[in-house]
Amino acid sequence: MVPRLGPLKLKAQIFCGDEPAMGPGKADLLEAIDREGSISAAGRALGMSYRRTWLLVDSMNRCWVDKLVDTTPGGGSDKGARITPCGKQVLAAYRALESRLLETADAGSLDALSPLLREKPLPPS
Amino acid sequence: MVPRLGPLKLKAQIFCGDEPAMGPGKADLLEAIDREGSISAAGRALGMSYRRTWLLVDSMNRCWVDKLVDTTPGGGSDKGARITPCGKQVLAAYRALESRLLETADAGSLDALSPLLREKPLPPS
Repeated sequence: MVPRLGPLKLKAQIFCGDEPAMGPGKADLLEAIDREGSISAAGRALGMSYRRTWLLVDSMNRCWVDKLVDTTPGGGSDKGARITPCGKQVLAAYRALESRLLETADAGSLDALSPLLREKPLPPS
Repeated sequence: MVPRLGPLKLKAQIFCGDEPAMGPGKADLLEAIDREGSISAAGRALGMSYRRTWLLVDSMNRCWVDKLVDTTPGGGSDKGARITPCGKQVLAAYRALESRLLETADAGSLDALSPLLREKPLPPS
């Protein structure tokens, strides 16, 4: 999810060339894979289609120096997916970036905007 | 346009309730209206449809304590659109917020991510 701070929504995306390599959705997916131990379970937990989930994982795995998600194919007790060390590093650095950006917004950057905002929009004209 | 800094794209949106009240597209539109002196000319300059341009203006005008864009109807020499004092204030504060966020990102927040990024993504698998 795109992080919010009061009236502010802040979406940080990291691009590899023209390809989005990390962003709010991919970071949430990495965390869900870490929690669920499976790519398809992670997608289900986030309400994403199977196809979209795999496309995001494939994209993440092609944009960084190492893959972010590792899968063990087959049906043994080892099967499933896990976040690689590179994946943990990228995820932590991305969450830290988001936090620092929100801290900046919190440290006075919204003070000139918030008082000018209505509580609710007027009805459409 | 969503501002970029190296591999980072950063989209800041200000919401009034559930309605997006300011963001990269609306800020660009305000600047174009200020430049062109007309809502439809501003929309054309940004390659936006007439309908979308007016929807954005209507939305901006309902979310803040005062309207951001003022129109003079009719065909006199005064006709056209201009940014209100409140519009100038919101635009300046929004651009200042964007700048401070990018400064934060520039001040080391990307250092943990950039070295892990490939120059180009690998081809889709």
